[in-house]
Amino acid sequence: MQHYPPSVIQVIRQLATLPGIGPKTAERLALHLLKASGDEVRGLAQSILALKANVRLCSRCFALSESSLCPVCRDPARDTGLICVVERPADMMAVEAASGFQGVYHILQGVLSPMDGIGPEDIRIRELILRIRTEEVREVILATGTAVEGEATAAYLAEQLSGLPIRVTRIASGIPMGGDLKYIDQVTLKRALESRRHVP
Amino acid sequence: MQHYPPSVIQVIRQLATLPGIGPKTAERLALHLLKASGDEVRGLAQSILALKANVRLCSRCFALSESSLCPVCRDPARDTGLICVVERPADMMAVEAASGFQGVYHILQGVLSPMDGIGPEDIRIRELILRIRTEEVREVILATGTAVEGEATAAYLAEQLSGLPIRVTRIASGIPMGGDLKYIDQVTLKRALESRRHVP
Repeated sequence: MQHYPPSVIQVIRQLATLPGIGPKTAERLALHLLKASGDEVRGLAQSILALKANVRLCSRCFALSESSLCPVCRDPARDTGLICVVERPADMMAVEAASGFQGVYHILQGVLSPMDGIGPEDIRIRELILRIRTEEVREVILATGTAVEGEATAAYLAEQLSGLPIRVTRIASGIPMGGDLKYIDQVTLKRALESRRHVP
Repeated sequence: MQHYPPSVIQVIRQLATLPGIGPKTAERLALHLLKASGDEVRGLAQSILALKANVRLCSRCFALSESSLCPVCRDPARDTGLICVVERPADMMAVEAASGFQGVYHILQGVLSPMDGIGPEDIRIRELILRIRTEEVREVILATGTAVEGEATAAYLAEQLSGLPIRVTRIASGIPMGGDLKYIDQVTLKRALESRRHVP
């Protein structure tokens, strides 16, 4: 790599800092950019700059947004009494993509993780409690992940919200749809049995 | 993806056009860039623009360069009588990295590929012959790849150069170093037997 011109080495180094991109992939991408048209390359650079300049967090739910309030919070058809609490913007996108959910969101922007020094004051828990106190909230769905940190965060939130006059629920965990029991891990299977539902 | 703000969707689309980067990886990269510092993101965008603005081809050997002549062509210690002909800049970097080679290069910027409509006039063959005629060249090493197109290009070049008062050689093909015979493909093994050398 050290034999490339400095501008090429610079791009390779910068690209290699991105997640999942090693030096070999970075080299391939840099050589691709060299061959690409000027318009294409300028378009990429400008859209990266625009990303940083235009995108901020919704002042109410902390979703990614280009205005003070995100499109979901601005939508009058949404049920503001139902808040779905997720870890990160990508989780909100997953719930939106599954569609059917008509409530609003609260993006914590992280999970409790004592190992990484992330405590309750580092994620948007205070803002959630403030929303529940000042808005007319009926139900909060705890939709953090089912890994250790997500479970711990949900448990912490459930405790914090227990004194408030709202319904607190947790998304169901169990066998994924289309799942074959013999390939499901033991923890999930145990949880699915414990959470069994009466067939109506 | 359609639920992200337009600036985010724009970056995801642009990144997904790069080789080896699908929509999921592009989404992950875009979210990483959103979290990265402004300096980091500006650095990346600027280095991509600088790449396009600064890098051109060496006027003599067609290597990537930031000046009219590339560092190898400018180096007075290099043996200009020995030209190593390769397909692409990355191949030249591989030969340089293996070090030990003290000659100069000629980068064809492609290989003959009738299937893709690439003929002798589409790659830098004319320029190679001109170099041999005007510079004092002793030997040309044909170091195109050993895939079909690289072999065909080497054969074509060997024919074109046969009338000139120079030595024309081809890099050796055979068992890679550290290779185990039972895992080597038949074509390589056949070639290695045919090209066997007398042990001195």
